[in-house]
Amino acid sequence: MANATNEYPAKGYAATAPESGMAPFAFNRRGLRDDDVLIDISHCGICHSDLHASRNDWGRTVYPIVPGHEITGHVAAVGDKVTKHAVGDRVAIGCMVDSCMECDLCKQGLEQYCKKGMTGTYNGKDRRDGSTTFGGYSDKIVAREEFVIKVPDALSMADAAPLLCAGITSYSPLRNWKVGPGSKVAVAGLGGLGHMGVKFAVAMGADVTVLSRSEDKREDALALGAVDLLLTTDRDAMKARSGYFDLVLNTIPVKHDVAPYVMLLKVDGVQVLVGMIDMVPEFHSGLLLMGRKVLTGSGIGGVAETQEMLDFCAEKGITPDIEMIAMGDVNKAYDRMEASDVKYRFVIDMATLGD
Amino acid sequence: MANATNEYPAKGYAATAPESGMAPFAFNRRGLRDDDVLIDISHCGICHSDLHASRNDWGRTVYPIVPGHEITGHVAAVGDKVTKHAVGDRVAIGCMVDSCMECDLCKQGLEQYCKKGMTGTYNGKDRRDGSTTFGGYSDKIVAREEFVIKVPDALSMADAAPLLCAGITSYSPLRNWKVGPGSKVAVAGLGGLGHMGVKFAVAMGADVTVLSRSEDKREDALALGAVDLLLTTDRDAMKARSGYFDLVLNTIPVKHDVAPYVMLLKVDGVQVLVGMIDMVPEFHSGLLLMGRKVLTGSGIGGVAETQEMLDFCAEKGITPDIEMIAMGDVNKAYDRMEASDVKYRFVIDMATLGD
Repeated sequence: MANATNEYPAKGYAATAPESGMAPFAFNRRGLRDDDVLIDISHCGICHSDLHASRNDWGRTVYPIVPGHEITGHVAAVGDKVTKHAVGDRVAIGCMVDSCMECDLCKQGLEQYCKKGMTGTYNGKDRRDGSTTFGGYSDKIVAREEFVIKVPDALSMADAAPLLCAGITSYSPLRNWKVGPGSKVAVAGLGGLGHMGVKFAVAMGADVTVLSRSEDKREDALALGAVDLLLTTDRDAMKARSGYFDLVLNTIPVKHDVAPYVMLLKVDGVQVLVGMIDMVPEFHSGLLLMGRKVLTGSGIGGVAETQEMLDFCAEKGITPDIEMIAMGDVNKAYDRMEASDVKYRFVIDMATLGD
Repeated sequence: MANATNEYPAKGYAATAPESGMAPFAFNRRGLRDDDVLIDISHCGICHSDLHASRNDWGRTVYPIVPGHEITGHVAAVGDKVTKHAVGDRVAIGCMVDSCMECDLCKQGLEQYCKKGMTGTYNGKDRRDGSTTFGGYSDKIVAREEFVIKVPDALSMADAAPLLCAGITSYSPLRNWKVGPGSKVAVAGLGGLGHMGVKFAVAMGADVTVLSRSEDKREDALALGAVDLLLTTDRDAMKARSGYFDLVLNTIPVKHDVAPYVMLLKVDGVQVLVGMIDMVPEFHSGLLLMGRKVLTGSGIGGVAETQEMLDFCAEKGITPDIEMIAMGDVNKAYDRMEASDVKYRFVIDMATLGD
């Protein structure tokens, strides 16, 4: 399988410039290091950040870029010292493929906040050879075993994929802030992250309300397990829910005013930003002072917590709502994602890569 | 002492218009209700909000206004059903004189966040007769017994006064966020609140650093018990303390960028705003997302917690650094306060009121 230099020829899709769109791309995966695992990729979810990164919206993109950090597949080979995984194992990779593993945050299982910076699954810089990492829009990937997660048998490879970013990003703050039976949780934004946030919070026993600008989403919200949809454009309805929620999970991926959501919080209530990677517009400090309201954020989750989340999904029968696409349709999928025309996550069937 | 209508003629200082300054003012305190206490005021601290309110900076002032919510004195008379206090008791009143006492927040001892709104000690609206409340720049006050706190014998009346607002406002968030031995605490702003924040955090066992734009304050910071002063204008020094603190107590009373203080926080670190009653300028959400940083606020404290704080001060020998002034010098004190020319709290000796 490996070539003369022990590298693995790989196929994938890459953007080569901000306006290039995604197109077929041939490259090599590195030969196995002692602690590496080679994975034949089965599925890869499409995250909004894939689109931003491929277009260099954040100004940090190194081209060519192979996006994708919601990866599932089977182990195809293992390095000499690998102990955690074996050939044939059902596995997954999320947003990171390495970290220092030595700082106190890594040791606490918070590798995503590694003091030396975690290595992104794509557009990251490999810690050993400095090369740019390529993501999951590809037929295979090589990664350090510690960052490879096990996919429980109860989850299909397609269903598991979006859990690696959309899933863990909404799961982690609900756990961190101790959402449980009776918690009043509001979820703002009903996309990849938001719909998982609803399912997780419901499974944890919370009363979940979806916050939306559109009444159209009521049926979907209730179908996901929410008890209500609160129209954020309805001033009276918003006022009636002032001081009602323990936690607002804010998954809205674009710049927006967070103040209306702070007003929905109880004393000591918490708004967690997980979607917006942008400036938080100014708001009055009194919103936080009057009632010790918390504004915070959360980024993905650690390796152990990601495993816990997958196991939780298997145990509770939680799966994302996905739409499967062929690799060649990724540009169309990006356009539809920008138009919020997906319920709720595109997943690439990597078997279509050769088509 | 009471007149024919059972009211108590009182002397005080009031502003009568935004530009009037403070001047002598004669008025009546209400006759005692069953649950009221009459207090002969001994001392009253001067809070920055007194100045804002007297000038209608927040647009909510009802004139004439008698400021003052850091009040100490002796009980001079009690209503028929008063059980908590007796004539001669050493007592104090802080920022509130009433609340609904029935909502779940009042029942939890969070009267300051009363669902129906607490009644401010001045410029508030009495819950029973709708009259505007007058504060502590006065020789006497009548207030509901539940909102009257006991002053421990170990504290002088003058020292106790600033604890009722500056003290409790800095004490409460340190307790709420569980500052204890070994906590790394930074205090931004070294005024009435900030200097108490340093003393409290030190007494709780924390390593305290003062954040300041001026090296001039180093000596004062160390004298208050801080281990260090961090110059916020020194980029390298700030960078070296990135990710260092568990909690930043931000007492700065004017609008300012909170982002540099977020960067000083550890993962899960907390910045508490207690001073700025203004817009929080926009900042990038990534500051909160990368490391679950918390931005929050806190307003004074409940009745029981205020008592706890006074008892803590008595036990630990904690007192504010005060400068005593005569009532007639209040306008000069306001000017000096605006110029940050006070270490660290003015206290009015009410014995000078008749001068």
